[in-house]
Amino acid sequence: MRGTDLGLRLLVAAIGIPLALLVLLVGGWLLALFVAALAGMASWELNALAKARGVRVFPWISIPGTVLLVVMAGATRSFPEWAPWAIGALLALFFFSSAAAVRLRTPEERPLLSASLTVVGVLYWGGCFSFAVFLRHLPEVIGWPDPAADFPGPVLLAFPLAVTWSADSAAFLFGNLFGRRKLAPEVSPGKTVEGGAAGLATAVLVGALMGWVFLRIHPEPLISCLAGGSMGFLMGITVQVGDLIESLYKREAGVKDSGGVLPGHGGILDRFDALIFTLPLTYALVRLVGRIV
Amino acid sequence: MRGTDLGLRLLVAAIGIPLALLVLLVGGWLLALFVAALAGMASWELNALAKARGVRVFPWISIPGTVLLVVMAGATRSFPEWAPWAIGALLALFFFSSAAAVRLRTPEERPLLSASLTVVGVLYWGGCFSFAVFLRHLPEVIGWPDPAADFPGPVLLAFPLAVTWSADSAAFLFGNLFGRRKLAPEVSPGKTVEGGAAGLATAVLVGALMGWVFLRIHPEPLISCLAGGSMGFLMGITVQVGDLIESLYKREAGVKDSGGVLPGHGGILDRFDALIFTLPLTYALVRLVGRIV
Repeated sequence: MRGTDLGLRLLVAAIGIPLALLVLLVGGWLLALFVAALAGMASWELNALAKARGVRVFPWISIPGTVLLVVMAGATRSFPEWAPWAIGALLALFFFSSAAAVRLRTPEERPLLSASLTVVGVLYWGGCFSFAVFLRHLPEVIGWPDPAADFPGPVLLAFPLAVTWSADSAAFLFGNLFGRRKLAPEVSPGKTVEGGAAGLATAVLVGALMGWVFLRIHPEPLISCLAGGSMGFLMGITVQVGDLIESLYKREAGVKDSGGVLPGHGGILDRFDALIFTLPLTYALVRLVGRIV
Repeated sequence: MRGTDLGLRLLVAAIGIPLALLVLLVGGWLLALFVAALAGMASWELNALAKARGVRVFPWISIPGTVLLVVMAGATRSFPEWAPWAIGALLALFFFSSAAAVRLRTPEERPLLSASLTVVGVLYWGGCFSFAVFLRHLPEVIGWPDPAADFPGPVLLAFPLAVTWSADSAAFLFGNLFGRRKLAPEVSPGKTVEGGAAGLATAVLVGALMGWVFLRIHPEPLISCLAGGSMGFLMGITVQVGDLIESLYKREAGVKDSGGVLPGHGGILDRFDALIFTLPLTYALVRLVGRIV
């Protein structure tokens, strides 16, 4: 890595991390609009990615659609309330994308693929990112301890962020230092078995640590260390698979970095690729497992 | 049309229509499993359609996924209850399709397009067809008159079926007899402006008639003639656009009939193409407009 790259990375981190913490604590519309902006940029990048392989998405449907889904999350702040509107929006978007394809595309221009990628992009970026809002406000929705005093919402959202980013960094560092055996050479030549194992171990450790934080903020064990570690394990696997998925898709599009929005940090797609699956996974685990174990 | 074709069509109709009426009246799991089978076959056809254009869907994900969505509709019988599970299933299916793509596809085999088409197929067939179940059981969910005595559920589901199929047939007959001006020659050379107008007029008439049926089954006007006619108008437009959409997609795949499951009636895709959009549209209109006008 060149020195300027490292400097840029540190600068972005120095501004980005305190900003992210502020957004995390405040939640509500600040969080929703921040996430909506991220999702909109990611949707923009997907558009460029698809175009690079000759399938043109409808950006004037996919970008507003993605932002709309996250804004709806900000308005409802509750996944069960949001989901019917999201399904309705996705079906309407598929209808309008298809109708647009009838007007704008000849059969040779692959209209079905355009409409499908448009809708999947909205589901993927808008749908998954919305879970940041749902996690942040889950304690209020289900009446978890005392939301004002205990801050369980910010900690719940910090859970997948901490696990994902620490596992990602550990896999990168360990893989670079000690990596010998390739994990999936055809898809992502840089990834090693050693890096993957280090990422997974880090995910379990950070998950258990987050369980301990939950024990600290409230005497009733919301998420125990054991449950936190187990959740970290599943999230760690998801992070690795998500990384491979994004590498495959970037190779399909024939690009290395998917965009250049955060200088020195690759594209938005690169920084948030793993989060995209761990956010909804964390929500599902907290609802299904968190209160039981 | 050849004689054997017409005979086959009549035979299929003679068996199909009484069967459909029985399923409509009984509802519940009989309806859900009937619709799940239809959706599964449609998903199978989409698979063949996509393969014809060199994009292979993952059929062992898309077909069970489609059936699962409709079975979940049968289990909940309520759209707001079903939607969170449906979103969860769609996100999980996208993750597993993508993970399958990492294992099975090289970047040259267009893995992102495979995974996207797989998920859109599930949303499209499984999601839209599920609204047959939601419409049939909507009166029970929202406590509409007396479900046992008045049969509002079967009539609600019969509403889009009657409007769609009568508008489709009127457009076909009128277009064949009096059609002069082409509606969209590049997409569907058989469709004419005259046929389209006749289809739209029929949709308005049948919609108003269904409003009158609603007045008959219960003194309180659930859906008035005016509301029924207006709903028929929107459904008529949707039917026409849906027809054009399917023609475009068939041309993209380079086939004329999308399958051969119902003899003489083209593919499942052909018979239900317009319903796919009118089912959710009817649900939305009944919830948003039906009780107001």
